[in-house]
Amino acid sequence: MSERIRDFLRQRQGDGPCVVVDLDIVRDNYSAFVKALPDTSVYYAVKANPDPAILSLLEGLGSSFDCASVGEIGMVLATGADASRISYGNTIKKERDIARAYELGVRLFAVDSLEEVEKIARAAPGARVLCRVLCDGAGAEWPLSRKFGCDPAMAPDVLEHAHRNGLAAYGVSFHVGSQQANLGAWDFALAMAADVFKEMAFRGIELKMVNMGGGFPTRYLKDVPGVPSYGEAIFAALVKHFGNRLPATIIEPGRGMVGNAGLIEAEVVLISRKSAEDTVRWVYLDIGKFHGLAETMDEAIRYPIRTPRDGDATAPCVLAGPTCDSVDVMYEKTPYELPVSLSIGDKILIEACGAYTTTYSTVGFNGFAPLASYVI
Amino acid sequence: MSERIRDFLRQRQGDGPCVVVDLDIVRDNYSAFVKALPDTSVYYAVKANPDPAILSLLEGLGSSFDCASVGEIGMVLATGADASRISYGNTIKKERDIARAYELGVRLFAVDSLEEVEKIARAAPGARVLCRVLCDGAGAEWPLSRKFGCDPAMAPDVLEHAHRNGLAAYGVSFHVGSQQANLGAWDFALAMAADVFKEMAFRGIELKMVNMGGGFPTRYLKDVPGVPSYGEAIFAALVKHFGNRLPATIIEPGRGMVGNAGLIEAEVVLISRKSAEDTVRWVYLDIGKFHGLAETMDEAIRYPIRTPRDGDATAPCVLAGPTCDSVDVMYEKTPYELPVSLSIGDKILIEACGAYTTTYSTVGFNGFAPLASYVI
Repeated sequence: MSERIRDFLRQRQGDGPCVVVDLDIVRDNYSAFVKALPDTSVYYAVKANPDPAILSLLEGLGSSFDCASVGEIGMVLATGADASRISYGNTIKKERDIARAYELGVRLFAVDSLEEVEKIARAAPGARVLCRVLCDGAGAEWPLSRKFGCDPAMAPDVLEHAHRNGLAAYGVSFHVGSQQANLGAWDFALAMAADVFKEMAFRGIELKMVNMGGGFPTRYLKDVPGVPSYGEAIFAALVKHFGNRLPATIIEPGRGMVGNAGLIEAEVVLISRKSAEDTVRWVYLDIGKFHGLAETMDEAIRYPIRTPRDGDATAPCVLAGPTCDSVDVMYEKTPYELPVSLSIGDKILIEACGAYTTTYSTVGFNGFAPLASYVI
Repeated sequence: MSERIRDFLRQRQGDGPCVVVDLDIVRDNYSAFVKALPDTSVYYAVKANPDPAILSLLEGLGSSFDCASVGEIGMVLATGADASRISYGNTIKKERDIARAYELGVRLFAVDSLEEVEKIARAAPGARVLCRVLCDGAGAEWPLSRKFGCDPAMAPDVLEHAHRNGLAAYGVSFHVGSQQANLGAWDFALAMAADVFKEMAFRGIELKMVNMGGGFPTRYLKDVPGVPSYGEAIFAALVKHFGNRLPATIIEPGRGMVGNAGLIEAEVVLISRKSAEDTVRWVYLDIGKFHGLAETMDEAIRYPIRTPRDGDATAPCVLAGPTCDSVDVMYEKTPYELPVSLSIGDKILIEACGAYTTTYSTVGFNGFAPLASYVI
């Protein structure tokens, strides 16, 4: 934990759980991406944490932005960033939202279907489109479904359809899966992208860009490779598959940009057992799945937790949230080791919570306020 | 769909998905519960839908209220209801929240552990406590974990601990699992409750109340027994296990009170395929798991969907939400049959959405606004 966050929490007024993000760490992360991939543009995935202070910092550092909606585009423009620094990366867009983005100056759009191409051709004439191809996401900790992207064999038809409808068939995008610990994932995806480039060249259309997506991990409980290792692996794969005709490239870090910059302070509300013989204690916090820890769904993301009793002997606990919803349990299949001396009322710190926490919070399920957020 | 909702939607201004709840149907549901179990008090589970108009209607009809937090207690008191009509039913409470509820006049609390009894003894001296016992939830569509309740064998110790600490050891509570279609579930749970009553009588403490919880279903795609059937089954089980010394009883319908009173109007944003050979279409809506349809988690709740093309030939579809999150998919393992003629831009109606939708919505994940809600 940074000294700045420690100081902030010491002086905080107010009750209930909160997340605190340290902008110094975000700045360091941005620099690490730029250094690791100097010829690649960084498009911050706004959905990871759209706090205005984070967006303004990244705007000042020169970052571009990956937006999921017109709402997010508005947040980015509010920092003063030019619309040319925005990619509308959601493959699922209402035609009137495409038109609104186009009016606002956005010219780069993601597609994965003929149907979406037609909407963009009508609502954003002449815009650049990247066709997203499916990746299997093997090695990623946050599940990647088939929701985004088309079969790579269909991508040339989608891009040719764009070209024939007056759009700029601009390139290929993919996503290797969030919290991706396997450096080889980009090699596999870049091979697919290069195949699409070749097929399009054969059809007389020269693609120019590869959007290599996000997936850069945050360190939770397990060690992950550092950003420089990702940079080397990705550059090697680019050279392997594109030779000396490297395309323009962009990356979209979200979790990798802000995940380790924030932590949540929470309180132990109850520690109890279900029967006199139970060996596993239940530890209930004042935060759970519905107020910021949604990524514990299926126990996918396993956050590091620090307590004021660290160093004491530990024992396995089920960890649950404060709502009257039986699915509001974070870790049960794989119980969490916590100090035996942990007590009701203790404040604990849940680390690496800068990404995918604030906006995942419900508006007020069970009458509990949304997660309080501070960016310092 | 009620004529009133149809009229409202025809005249609605404004873009984006919304839920509309018809108070006439809530009134009918309340009457059905009172008629089915005339000697049982109805405590509406506020968490299902805390809209002020719903709370005010139920206050006027004479309902009591089951609250999960001090926030919900405040919402109920705002209707003018007396605090004696409130049960603080969450077994996980901060001691300062118990103190606040006590200050506000609340005198009925749920517990499932010795530790929670001690908090209540300190912060709400003399209050009545109900000890919640574990049910296995077999037959329920929404999963019931071991999160709430203790082993029935431990309940007498919890209640005796309350008695020895100056509290009124008042009774037993249980929950048979949400969307419970098995009428026999209450028989099993009431047998457990009766055993606790006997053991406490043996210890010289006379319990007075059984909180029979919720679980009353809403009709989604499958038929469910009507409220009168539940009333008969529950009354028969009460007589079987308590004979002619029936305890005071309460029920806590949430889904059963408001589920069928509301529906969501949404829009088809995209219909596409992942490859030229795909037989299953992907249908993307402007609402998903993060903006109201959280209960589709693990495809648990399967909502009825009406489209303007109903009657046309159908084919299986994967149904997904609008966010850039790969888990924002409602039905994939079991695809959903929708008309082949369904088109981008069509408005569809998702029925039985009055419960567990509005407050489950995120504050703004992906830059999309929380679910709009209207109560008419």
